[in-house]
Amino acid sequence: MNNYSSLALLTDLYQLTMANGYYRTGIADRESIFTLYFRKNPFDNPYTITAGLAHAIDYLQNFHFSGEDIAYLAQLQGNDGQLLFSSAFLTYLSRLQFSCDVDALPEGTVVFPNQPMLRIKGRLIEAQLFETALLNILNFQSLIATKATRVVRAAQGDTVLEFGLRRAQGIDGGLAASRAAYIGGCHATSNVLAGKLFGIPVRGTHAHSWVMCFDSEPEAFMQYAKVMPNNCTFLVDTYNTIEGVKNAIEVGKWLQTQGHKLAGIRLDSGDLAALSIEARKILDNAGFTDTRIVASNDLDEYSIAKLKQAGSPIAVWGVGTKLVTAFDQPALGGVYKLTAIKNKYGEWQARIKHSETLEKASTPGMLQVRRFHKNGAWVGDMLYNEFTSPFERTPNIITEKGISFTFDAQLQSTDLLQPIFRGGNLVYQKPDIHSIRQHTLQQMQKIHATQNYPVGWEQSLYELRQNLLKGNFLFQDPNITQLLKGTNIRDKIING
Amino acid sequence: MNNYSSLALLTDLYQLTMANGYYRTGIADRESIFTLYFRKNPFDNPYTITAGLAHAIDYLQNFHFSGEDIAYLAQLQGNDGQLLFSSAFLTYLSRLQFSCDVDALPEGTVVFPNQPMLRIKGRLIEAQLFETALLNILNFQSLIATKATRVVRAAQGDTVLEFGLRRAQGIDGGLAASRAAYIGGCHATSNVLAGKLFGIPVRGTHAHSWVMCFDSEPEAFMQYAKVMPNNCTFLVDTYNTIEGVKNAIEVGKWLQTQGHKLAGIRLDSGDLAALSIEARKILDNAGFTDTRIVASNDLDEYSIAKLKQAGSPIAVWGVGTKLVTAFDQPALGGVYKLTAIKNKYGEWQARIKHSETLEKASTPGMLQVRRFHKNGAWVGDMLYNEFTSPFERTPNIITEKGISFTFDAQLQSTDLLQPIFRGGNLVYQKPDIHSIRQHTLQQMQKIHATQNYPVGWEQSLYELRQNLLKGNFLFQDPNITQLLKGTNIRDKIING
Repeated sequence: MNNYSSLALLTDLYQLTMANGYYRTGIADRESIFTLYFRKNPFDNPYTITAGLAHAIDYLQNFHFSGEDIAYLAQLQGNDGQLLFSSAFLTYLSRLQFSCDVDALPEGTVVFPNQPMLRIKGRLIEAQLFETALLNILNFQSLIATKATRVVRAAQGDTVLEFGLRRAQGIDGGLAASRAAYIGGCHATSNVLAGKLFGIPVRGTHAHSWVMCFDSEPEAFMQYAKVMPNNCTFLVDTYNTIEGVKNAIEVGKWLQTQGHKLAGIRLDSGDLAALSIEARKILDNAGFTDTRIVASNDLDEYSIAKLKQAGSPIAVWGVGTKLVTAFDQPALGGVYKLTAIKNKYGEWQARIKHSETLEKASTPGMLQVRRFHKNGAWVGDMLYNEFTSPFERTPNIITEKGISFTFDAQLQSTDLLQPIFRGGNLVYQKPDIHSIRQHTLQQMQKIHATQNYPVGWEQSLYELRQNLLKGNFLFQDPNITQLLKGTNIRDKIING
Repeated sequence: MNNYSSLALLTDLYQLTMANGYYRTGIADRESIFTLYFRKNPFDNPYTITAGLAHAIDYLQNFHFSGEDIAYLAQLQGNDGQLLFSSAFLTYLSRLQFSCDVDALPEGTVVFPNQPMLRIKGRLIEAQLFETALLNILNFQSLIATKATRVVRAAQGDTVLEFGLRRAQGIDGGLAASRAAYIGGCHATSNVLAGKLFGIPVRGTHAHSWVMCFDSEPEAFMQYAKVMPNNCTFLVDTYNTIEGVKNAIEVGKWLQTQGHKLAGIRLDSGDLAALSIEARKILDNAGFTDTRIVASNDLDEYSIAKLKQAGSPIAVWGVGTKLVTAFDQPALGGVYKLTAIKNKYGEWQARIKHSETLEKASTPGMLQVRRFHKNGAWVGDMLYNEFTSPFERTPNIITEKGISFTFDAQLQSTDLLQPIFRGGNLVYQKPDIHSIRQHTLQQMQKIHATQNYPVGWEQSLYELRQNLLKGNFLFQDPNITQLLKGTNIRDKIING
């Protein structure tokens, strides 16, 4: 439909007006750090799963303003009808090349509020221009991957198929959702283009319209069996579900004579618990014990859990709308904040946004997440500032609730953010989608085993943040300069 | 990111397995009618606004299977590891060309449950293959256009800006949402690519990061004013909102000396009612009575209505996440059903899907919506079957609640579905996006004036549907043939 070869304009206009401002005031090249994180897990879930990095990498690698993009910007006007952008600035944009360092969590990683999912270090103007697209990509895919882990868990090991394309939020809302749902543990999708683009297994047999095209349901099933004998899961509820099951069995007997089998029947309406129990009995009595019952119809983790509790012998769950739109919370509130910037003397300065709403406060610095573990089990997470030297860091964290926790010196640990780009060059080997899904599934085993998992700020980082918050804001409080001198943040110069 | 030049695979796999079945059983060319409609308005809204037709047209016009698509399909396997599709079928697909008749509601039209938004008449195999993509496109854009009309109404004539890209559901979830929000009456978007692609006005000034890049907020505002004097709406809540307003005013005074003006200030956190009232006072006292207050921060129609009620002097509303994701109901449940098909003798047969759930029943026939009006005011809507001759149709409708209503013979009326394609050729002139938006705004005037607006099935269509429902299903009840003979549906042959 649209041609996405140039996505530089996939941004909010204010990113471009700010970029113009940075350019005109001479600070476009000032080295800065932006951190992408969220403040609250979606769905009251105890964790979030990262997804979307592969697309973020594609976006950054292909970032450029095309001639068409520049021509569009060249005619935009301000309040007074004068042009918004000068031709000097537009020439500068047309030559802009991606040159930043990027560190990020691999896709399929468990992440908690305030932990960076991605961090950019580089020229202020570049990092600013990437904000909107990176948020769009990572917010949505992480939301859906997280939702998928919930659905997969509710299905207790059964097969989960993602069927959501027709009610997804636009084309890419469908494609990106299919990818994220697979990363979150779904087994396959109905979305053929997602299958082609991302290498996800695809599944599907027939809809009500197939049955309605023939003079009777038995004829419809028989005709399907004749032409696709190796793909027979019959939708049995076009007219009457139980009659449909019996019709499917008759065709199943014919399939057996041909050396094929009745793979499944699908229920798409009515009381799925009662109908699946009844259908299972009829199938078993007819000897079709291997024929699996597939269910669909506005399913989500809650309805699956209820059906499981009711003893429904459903073996395959087709989950659509409520998964791909994350129906109960259709957006992850990820944000992208400036957390450090060099001043004109080349010194790094931490930055914090305070504002009226305390929970909107950011964490300053060059942030990294350290996950401690022991014999493969996770012990806790520490958010720390790489600007603080190891000697000045403590083994303590303070959680969001202000509880302190000390990590044993004997524990092993892993720093979760991995180098993705250095100076604009990709230094990360993108894992294939099946490995990402396996990574998620492994992480799910670990998080399940973990109650009251401690997550917090390394103590010196926590104190810096609290002090900056108490000072109300960084630049109008004379104490802040003193405070910054008290840490080593101001004086530390990192040269990438 | 992805290349969307070929969208034929943007579909559920079962559409392709059914297509294969139609091809192999020799009914692929059977003439059929599919109807796209929904069963329930979103958000408990009294109406829905159609959107997405322009993209549906693009999709249909560009429909083809590329060599890559065919190669992907050629390696898909069934349950037994054998290939799913034969090379003969794949060759057939690669030559398939769009040849259907399409009728649809123009974008920006008020539509009610059970009324077709789009209707396809043509070869069974084509109509089947288009289902998923058409639903994806029309469901989502109609959902967001409808949501936008609610937000715009709550704003009571104020300017509404759509700011949602960063938390939209994927790239196209952002682009299509920006387009639909404008169709629904929003005034502009922050989404630059949507501006370029769709010709929507774009707006934006600066974010917190701009303020945080300078040593103080007054410096940040002043630097911005120097480089973009014709685009000054300052975000005042990075550190302290009221101080921010005062800093903006100081820079506003400088702007005046330069022949420019302080266009606005923006509030993005805290108690927007109290802060906007206080900010208005400070601005007015300083003589900045023309400076507008812009508000953002998770706004929707409910929070805007509350702020209005509290007397907030906010003049511009920046609405993001909750609009572009339709947060309180992120999917419209549109469906696409076979409603008539020719039998082997070339006779049209009506089709109905019954199933376990009564409200899921479809309406049979070749459906059209007639809207009655008098002196420009709407009187009511009749859903009728074009297979029934005008002489057999009644002036009566039966509503969903079973209430009957008769339209006066003197009333004027308009048939809402318009010819879009005939034999695969576009016969419709796509209106520009600004005309579509005007159409919506005009419709909003009419619907506001209408209480208890009567919407229903033309009586003979209602009776046909009820009889088919009572018969439980069409093809296993011997009375149905009799019933169909009783109407003129079975015997009517329409040749496009």
